[in-house]
Amino acid sequence: MKLATLKDGSRDGRLIVVTRDLKRYSHAGEVARTMQAALDDWMTIAPQLVRLAERLEEGTRPSEAFDARQVHSPLPRAYQWADGSAYVNHVELVRQARNAAMPSTFWTDPLMYQGGSDNFLGPCDPIVACDEGHGIDMEGEVAVIVDDVPMGAAPDQALNAIRLVMLANDVSLRHLIPDELAKGFGFFQSKPASAFSPVAVTPDELGDAWKDGKVHLPLLVSVNGRLFGRANAGIDMTFDFAKLVSHAARTRALSAGSIIGSGTVSNKKDGGPGTPISEGGDGYSCIAEIRMIETIRLGQPATPFLKFGDIVRIEMNDKRGASIFGALEQTVQRQTLEQP
Amino acid sequence: MKLATLKDGSRDGRLIVVTRDLKRYSHAGEVARTMQAALDDWMTIAPQLVRLAERLEEGTRPSEAFDARQVHSPLPRAYQWADGSAYVNHVELVRQARNAAMPSTFWTDPLMYQGGSDNFLGPCDPIVACDEGHGIDMEGEVAVIVDDVPMGAAPDQALNAIRLVMLANDVSLRHLIPDELAKGFGFFQSKPASAFSPVAVTPDELGDAWKDGKVHLPLLVSVNGRLFGRANAGIDMTFDFAKLVSHAARTRALSAGSIIGSGTVSNKKDGGPGTPISEGGDGYSCIAEIRMIETIRLGQPATPFLKFGDIVRIEMNDKRGASIFGALEQTVQRQTLEQP
Repeated sequence: MKLATLKDGSRDGRLIVVTRDLKRYSHAGEVARTMQAALDDWMTIAPQLVRLAERLEEGTRPSEAFDARQVHSPLPRAYQWADGSAYVNHVELVRQARNAAMPSTFWTDPLMYQGGSDNFLGPCDPIVACDEGHGIDMEGEVAVIVDDVPMGAAPDQALNAIRLVMLANDVSLRHLIPDELAKGFGFFQSKPASAFSPVAVTPDELGDAWKDGKVHLPLLVSVNGRLFGRANAGIDMTFDFAKLVSHAARTRALSAGSIIGSGTVSNKKDGGPGTPISEGGDGYSCIAEIRMIETIRLGQPATPFLKFGDIVRIEMNDKRGASIFGALEQTVQRQTLEQP
Repeated sequence: MKLATLKDGSRDGRLIVVTRDLKRYSHAGEVARTMQAALDDWMTIAPQLVRLAERLEEGTRPSEAFDARQVHSPLPRAYQWADGSAYVNHVELVRQARNAAMPSTFWTDPLMYQGGSDNFLGPCDPIVACDEGHGIDMEGEVAVIVDDVPMGAAPDQALNAIRLVMLANDVSLRHLIPDELAKGFGFFQSKPASAFSPVAVTPDELGDAWKDGKVHLPLLVSVNGRLFGRANAGIDMTFDFAKLVSHAARTRALSAGSIIGSGTVSNKKDGGPGTPISEGGDGYSCIAEIRMIETIRLGQPATPFLKFGDIVRIEMNDKRGASIFGALEQTVQRQTLEQP
């Protein structure tokens, strides 16, 4: 089934069930008012939502036209957003770009950072930034929402706790990262609000593409209408979601509704870094990677980071070319000062 | 006014108002069901809670005996827990202890890490750990809960958004920290669930002790019934809460109910590190600090980290010796395996 959260002026919005083709939706308020309420009691609520989704597909339930611009991120705010960096190829490239060495343990021990989760952007909300000079970048990712996970859960147990899958744009301010990471406490100001796809889906909606804790489909990332990346999320994912969730739960239980991200989807090519779309390659899911390739080739980066007015689109299609999660489509916007 | 969250078997518990002397409480469900619900609409809800608190103090409202063992942390789960490290003295000592250099910018640019907030411990819940060898330590802190804070808020604006003050135990697994920080993404497994004081209070409850965005009172930390620290939270706090909240909001808005911590309260003595209680000093709010002092003096640490069965108590009294927030009192406990 496919779930989303309709904007209604409240902080948490209203839970809706969306048709497989993303054309119609039906309110699910009679079953659970919000996405978090559904996740808080998933074993009871999910079967009721499934029945509702079936009636919606059959056309035996009132529905309305679905519009991604009217929804929040599936969880407009969450109790946890922990983002891995499972495509170690990305980590290797980005660290090269900032002249940081990469320890070999990065191939065996997942990187993960705790992100801010109090205030996500909607999938079509602007990326508001105060300064273009911060090096605004998208990061196209896959993310899962889990049920309660006990402390010390093994990967198998972690995999069974995955309830929903979605896409993410983990917005990054590249020029703030080196100084912030040098302080030793990880990202904070360099990671403003993230955004997620209009729709979150149960793993069964992915069919064969959900296998071994990975989504085996290309992630389509475009900037200003031009395809920028189509890296396959199932390839070069060193740590699958079972391992990422288990890593997050090693020393503490995870609460229902926790979001665990894959990190920037990134594919190698012939054992080396991938090539740009313009050269027939699979491109990149963030600008930092192409800038690294350019630095290696030309001595300096050529592709600028995002500017005010730029539009980022992130989407994933099934094998028949139909959008699974709907598209994130976000315009980078200059912050207008709010009065206190 | 003083607020708390009664355990009732639900994830968010029930909001209660507590008397100044922490002896009685009254349900506040008619005004707001949960602490987060109150924070979501503070300007409307708070005046109603104040009236309720007044009637509770007057004895004109039904009340029951307050017991800290029956409450959650004020927010049993929160949308954000961002912990600063405002007592730079602590940072300096802890970094010395792990042979990490401290850049001079640490005195001007606050350190802050994003903590897990999906699953806090109650103030009298056990600190469950899977391995004593992880180096289990308490960190006694002051924390504030803020209202919505717009991106880019100046310190003055940030100060005005502080709604509640409480104490925190930011449990740390010291032996996991060096390897985790070396990876560059900050704390994750090394920071298991934190706990907060039984009661959160509005700043006016602190009277003169709330000044310049700091709480000017000693933080009493004891281990197994022996006083371990009484560092004054108003002294040596390089970054007050106005600066910490403003730092957190630099590149993204903070949502109502976000918790911002001070970091481990730590006082210098005569320009150098503080001395132990046993020598008439003000002691420490975490074990890592005394171990550093011992390393400097004796060549190696003598005080062990917490063991299973140890009891940590964290409290703060007003000038008349009355407990303001109630006491955190937590026993360290070995994890018992849960079945999937």
